[in-house]
Amino acid sequence: MADGVVLLDTWASMFGMRVRIALAEKGVEYEYKEENLRNKSPLLLQMNPIHKKIPVLIHNGKPICESAIIVQYIDEVWNDKAPILPSDPYERAQARFWVDYIDKKVYDTWRKMWLSKGEEHEAGKKEFISIFKQLEETLSDKAYYGSDTFGFLDIGLIPFYSWFYTFETYGNFKMEEECPKLVAWAKRCMQREAVSKSLPDEKKVYDYVVAVTKVLESN
Amino acid sequence: MADGVVLLDTWASMFGMRVRIALAEKGVEYEYKEENLRNKSPLLLQMNPIHKKIPVLIHNGKPICESAIIVQYIDEVWNDKAPILPSDPYERAQARFWVDYIDKKVYDTWRKMWLSKGEEHEAGKKEFISIFKQLEETLSDKAYYGSDTFGFLDIGLIPFYSWFYTFETYGNFKMEEECPKLVAWAKRCMQREAVSKSLPDEKKVYDYVVAVTKVLESN
Repeated sequence: MADGVVLLDTWASMFGMRVRIALAEKGVEYEYKEENLRNKSPLLLQMNPIHKKIPVLIHNGKPICESAIIVQYIDEVWNDKAPILPSDPYERAQARFWVDYIDKKVYDTWRKMWLSKGEEHEAGKKEFISIFKQLEETLSDKAYYGSDTFGFLDIGLIPFYSWFYTFETYGNFKMEEECPKLVAWAKRCMQREAVSKSLPDEKKVYDYVVAVTKVLESN
Repeated sequence: MADGVVLLDTWASMFGMRVRIALAEKGVEYEYKEENLRNKSPLLLQMNPIHKKIPVLIHNGKPICESAIIVQYIDEVWNDKAPILPSDPYERAQARFWVDYIDKKVYDTWRKMWLSKGEEHEAGKKEFISIFKQLEETLSDKAYYGSDTFGFLDIGLIPFYSWFYTFETYGNFKMEEECPKLVAWAKRCMQREAVSKSLPDEKKVYDYVVAVTKVLESN
């Protein structure tokens, strides 16, 4: 495995998709290992003993964990093409800020909307939409986030696009009505092969979430 | 304010201390503005409308938020002396991983130990000590974290040293008994002027926490 690049991942993970997109943008060949999160492999537990979570990038036998950190690592190691982080320190800080915002807000708020009923569900939905409206507001008139070049914040956010159908179905709203500029940005990103080939079909994600919901509700 | 460096902060904040240490290591002059978190200034609300939190570094009139992001920004802008991030991409990723671990674990677990009684308090205390034992385990035999050079992870963790007395008093344990190597590392860090002048007195922190506790318990 020395000198190799291995990705421990699971296909529906937005965080894993970030890493897949970054590797595809850089043209890095790697071995993909699908993890079963209900029966984690000894390799995953060995490589990420602290959080026991995917994605983990194993490079030259050494693990890198946490998707935003992995994407930065990929940008620093394969630095000869397709820069991901902006070169200007202030723009880098802004991109890091918004990826951190996504990491702090989106998944937890989705869970609140997903797994609740009644008032709690409505409150979660309202908060969830407001997060995406906030993310839409930070779009400028450029093609990608803050720039005409596809970069760190684009990679941080675009994987959630493959979950939009699921969010909409569970939340009973239309992302295109709530955040039309954001959806237009997502469609631009999907024109990149590195993105479209890294994201799963939205209906497949939905079917997966329906199945997970059934398991959670039967416990 | 153009071309100036301003720090919005509050003296007892571990996260603010990180920024103070980084600026001191780099020898950057700045204007310090103490914030009252019970009555936040219009400037803070304007500069960090998303989280409304300190610390905020204002450089040339533009805000940078979130302490770990600010420290990286400082390292990138004032890059002519005292490098903070390791130069090797893998070591950078490791340092980022552990600072992220601190950000995800320490403060929330401290609150659990601090504001609870009985079994919940004991569970919080046990978890809290295990986090610091984990951080101690990652120390090597070098002077600082992973290196003989004071860097990103050192800056991320050392501010908590000024709260050790408070943690010990509320948790009824001794950090020196639980994590002697970590305390020895902290004392080495405190020999640096940039650190010692950026951290408040531990008894002053304790008195502050006692006062905050009284306010919280009376609400």
